Amino acid sequence: MSSNIKKLAILGSTGSIGRQVLDIVGDFPDRFMITGLAGGKNTSLLSSQINQFQPKLVYSAHKFNPPDGTKLCSMEEMAAHPDVDMVVLATSGKVGLTPTLAAIRSGKKIALANKEVLVMAGAIVMAEAGLKQTQILPIDSEHSAIYQCLQGETSQVARLILTASGGPLFHRSPATLNSVTVDEALKHPTWKMGKKVTIDSATLMNKALEAIEASWLFSIPLTKIDIVIHPQSVIHSLVEFVDGSLKAQLSAPDMRFAIQYALSYPERLANNRLPRIDLPLLNSLTFDRINYSMFPCLQLGLNAGKKGGTYPAVLCAADEIAVQLFLEKRIDFGQIAEIIDKILSLHQSVDKPTLDDILEADQWARNTATEILSKVNL
Amino acid sequence: MSSNIKKLAILGSTGSIGRQVLDIVGDFPDRFMITGLAGGKNTSLLSSQINQFQPKLVYSAHKFNPPDGTKLCSMEEMAAHPDVDMVVLATSGKVGLTPTLAAIRSGKKIALANKEVLVMAGAIVMAEAGLKQTQILPIDSEHSAIYQCLQGETSQVARLILTASGGPLFHRSPATLNSVTVDEALKHPTWKMGKKVTIDSATLMNKALEAIEASWLFSIPLTKIDIVIHPQSVIHSLVEFVDGSLKAQLSAPDMRFAIQYALSYPERLANNRLPRIDLPLLNSLTFDRINYSMFPCLQLGLNAGKKGGTYPAVLCAADEIAVQLFLEKRIDFGQIAEIIDKILSLHQSVDKPTLDDILEADQWARNTATEILSKVNL
Repeated sequence: MSSNIKKLAILGSTGSIGRQVLDIVGDFPDRFMITGLAGGKNTSLLSSQINQFQPKLVYSAHKFNPPDGTKLCSMEEMAAHPDVDMVVLATSGKVGLTPTLAAIRSGKKIALANKEVLVMAGAIVMAEAGLKQTQILPIDSEHSAIYQCLQGETSQVARLILTASGGPLFHRSPATLNSVTVDEALKHPTWKMGKKVTIDSATLMNKALEAIEASWLFSIPLTKIDIVIHPQSVIHSLVEFVDGSLKAQLSAPDMRFAIQYALSYPERLANNRLPRIDLPLLNSLTFDRINYSMFPCLQLGLNAGKKGGTYPAVLCAADEIAVQLFLEKRIDFGQIAEIIDKILSLHQSVDKPTLDDILEADQWARNTATEILSKVNL
Repeated sequence: MSSNIKKLAILGSTGSIGRQVLDIVGDFPDRFMITGLAGGKNTSLLSSQINQFQPKLVYSAHKFNPPDGTKLCSMEEMAAHPDVDMVVLATSGKVGLTPTLAAIRSGKKIALANKEVLVMAGAIVMAEAGLKQTQILPIDSEHSAIYQCLQGETSQVARLILTASGGPLFHRSPATLNSVTVDEALKHPTWKMGKKVTIDSATLMNKALEAIEASWLFSIPLTKIDIVIHPQSVIHSLVEFVDGSLKAQLSAPDMRFAIQYALSYPERLANNRLPRIDLPLLNSLTFDRINYSMFPCLQLGLNAGKKGGTYPAVLCAADEIAVQLFLEKRIDFGQIAEIIDKILSLHQSVDKPTLDDILEADQWARNTATEILSKVNL
């Protein structure tokens, strides 16, 4: 077996990103091998992934009998295992936090799709990554675009410009936003993603989370991160340099571009399965400003990011709960922002939080949500 | 004086590019100093430039009395002078060729705006630059864009995409192209440039020259260089990598971006005098295919580039003559392509030409043009 082969642990292999990571891995059997797979609820999919990729190490969030020759372990053990070169964080929510730290401490490369890791604990994660000189390759089209645009650049950045498709509701009249149904909010115009992320795209909360994540990943204050509506999702983000020149990365809206780039970095691998874009056929790339009053979640998120401390951890938990309630049709679309706002406004933030402070803030947000909700009797 | 200061010789300082180079130099007196200025016809402008920038070395294409403390010399001497770090080729036509080679042989950095240098003698210039490991920084918005997009990239390029505004005639009906007046052809929609380049933009010959230049500069065959119409001139060119991902460089259409980048490379310098772009204000970036039958010069140019040998040198000379005749109102717009086609079709190309072969081909093209024109009695 070639020493050039990269040994991967995929945490969250059964989710939307995890499945696309394995899709790319399957394209390059001589470049990548799977050492570990960590799956969520879908144990039958996990079984078939194990069958196909033959990992040594397996984790399952649910009761699971691993096949012969595989070893059950925790995600932290998997992330730190000597047979792993790169850990792919395809999880979502706070579960990715401690495995990320375990991977960094063990000197692994990181491919990071789990937004909450940096939103909740950016200061801690980036400090540890700095000490270990860890490569953190983002798996998110926006962050991957910025990462690509920064290659070979040694000068200061003036501004990051995150593009946003605007989601399924951008052209909706503000007066009817409260009555948006779950089905309407799940109809994303350009990206095929998991349900939580798709709702976050409809509220534009995802852009607040992405801005906070970008701020940590690229060491740039939130005040230098702009968000611009770009409905075609072809320009995935831009960097403006101090001379006023910008660089942009473009591709068809397909997560596999960012995934493959993260896996193969610093190389790019030829992959004819990925769709090409034809600019004259696209004809037009358009840009628009955000009407912040229409998307209160975005402003709430950015404010939480600017205040820092444990606010971003509370933001993540509150958003997760509110989106879940909306998906269960227990609250209106408009109430997502109201619930998040309420929880954030009750929070007493801790400055320069430790990991325990962050996890406590997360738990506090969940308890507070339960309390609030029991009173309003949803 | 700081050793960080870059000592420049500007060849062609009185032309459109040369004046903009000095405009940028004037913004950064602690970064750049002018060691040499070589001017063209406009000796009064050259005098005032000498007065402002106090170069040691001066060249003038016309009779000129240099002020005390400056020394008259040839462009080749200036390009090779020990007090010069970087030679800026802001000349046009074949006059830049031997000074470029003199600069390369003396180990200077090159900032190259003179398209014909690589179009005529790309093989020779790039071979010498390779031996000396010369940095050739392009001063042309398209090539600068590609250069910027290639920074930090180690993998193979799939395709270069040169953008073209389409020039002043893109929306003109093909039937009326022959009757285009000089004033109409000089009205470029986005770029302010010299007359020759502006007419080349109207015929799209400039894109053929740029494609041939890019082919040499980035070691990529012409078959992998596409041209796309982009009327706003904001995306200055793109690179498509083997994974299907693209990078683009954007800025307001102002040559000073490419000039400043070439001068300061690998650094970028903050310059608030350069205009910023605001994507939502621009609203839309559009792309279109080229109707090659409407722009015969483009196809003639690309064909000459593909055939190689001394064809590209003949192309440059023929185009220079034809454009001059059009500017003098001695021929119609449509005759530009006819004259170039006629001269190219009569040429006997030399394979792997030496510099002498190239200069001979240039002279042959000029003689042939005179002959043809004397027969048609313009």
